[in-house]
Amino acid sequence: VRTVEVKKGILSKNDRLAKRLRQRYEEAGVFTLNLVSSPGTGKTELLQRTLRELSDRGLKVAALVGDLQTDNDALRLQKSGAPVRQITTSGLCHLEAQMVEDHLQDWDLANLDFLFVENVGNLVCPSSFDLGEQLRIALLSVTEGEDKPLKYPPIFSSAHLAIITKADLAEPCEFQAQLAHDNIRSVHPDIAILTTSARTGQGFTEWLDYLIRQRQAWLEEKKGAATV
Amino acid sequence: VRTVEVKKGILSKNDRLAKRLRQRYEEAGVFTLNLVSSPGTGKTELLQRTLRELSDRGLKVAALVGDLQTDNDALRLQKSGAPVRQITTSGLCHLEAQMVEDHLQDWDLANLDFLFVENVGNLVCPSSFDLGEQLRIALLSVTEGEDKPLKYPPIFSSAHLAIITKADLAEPCEFQAQLAHDNIRSVHPDIAILTTSARTGQGFTEWLDYLIRQRQAWLEEKKGAATV
Repeated sequence: VRTVEVKKGILSKNDRLAKRLRQRYEEAGVFTLNLVSSPGTGKTELLQRTLRELSDRGLKVAALVGDLQTDNDALRLQKSGAPVRQITTSGLCHLEAQMVEDHLQDWDLANLDFLFVENVGNLVCPSSFDLGEQLRIALLSVTEGEDKPLKYPPIFSSAHLAIITKADLAEPCEFQAQLAHDNIRSVHPDIAILTTSARTGQGFTEWLDYLIRQRQAWLEEKKGAATV
Repeated sequence: VRTVEVKKGILSKNDRLAKRLRQRYEEAGVFTLNLVSSPGTGKTELLQRTLRELSDRGLKVAALVGDLQTDNDALRLQKSGAPVRQITTSGLCHLEAQMVEDHLQDWDLANLDFLFVENVGNLVCPSSFDLGEQLRIALLSVTEGEDKPLKYPPIFSSAHLAIITKADLAEPCEFQAQLAHDNIRSVHPDIAILTTSARTGQGFTEWLDYLIRQRQAWLEEKKGAATV
């Protein structure tokens, strides 16, 4: 019981901070996404291409990346030219709102259109921690097996979109797309699912259009709320 | 500080239970292994073939498998003919010694040569929880990227053996074996590394020989200790 109380304590503190972050993002007009998946699903690879292609469309993007150790991912993502910062959790298995806030410090959020937060690779723990994002995106690679949504439901049920990654490896992995879709929808019936390959670019037009459309809808909703 | 104290409290309780389990395994002469990796690295696939091939060699094997939800893995492993039980953690991100003890209840351990415990797919949290095993085995698939040991050091530094899995997919994944070895050894310099494919059987002779040799050494060490 004691541990449960403490966990609730951590969560409600995190929820307060996440709410504050969400307000900050709304005021700045920066659409923020929290990318969650297993280690090795290809979050950084997807993000690398996403940052580059959104920049090419004239949008201003930035990223925070979480890992237990190393700044490998930040170095990879900085190649896109976008501002990127590494959050090193020193052993913690997920990002918390406080860490995000600490790493945003001197960034001018009002000068950004999109902020991507790449969580620690973990299909369990990040699902409990709101980072103030507008959308949570759960990734599943074709190499992981179609049953992961059934075994790890909270990540998929708390996400707004599921992306199947590494589609170029579907054939050697004997990936059963329909089964994966059915499994994702059995834990989250109405979720949208995209299929991508950051290597070949498959699915990226759809993914970027999705991002831009979602941000547009959010901006209009904010404007509507302001005039009511 | 309070959360740290509570975490220490959970760990020391777990450590006490793990010690008790370890004694039980020693008395029964059952060599116990704890398999840890990301979700989708192929723990179950490796185990399925391992149970079958060890049985074919006349050894008595059993398995416990951990997941947040579903008994998919137990059903898959039961096909080997070995006794298998599913541990469903209901959301918890790792196995604890108590769960293992609860699921061993009426099994006659003295009638077993090997007990495999497949942990929840998670490259972070299981590293902190001793399950009383003789050996901890960390798996890394060729699909996950060579940098995972650098980003998630505790799992690899606390393991006794590293197994690279899904070797049949090395080519389409452009897997750099030497880099992966170097990264594993940079967090755990003297660790043994095996390369396997449960699909093709690659590396299984070496893996089974390793298991049998390790168990033999452990039995002899126990005997030695008893006669001193």
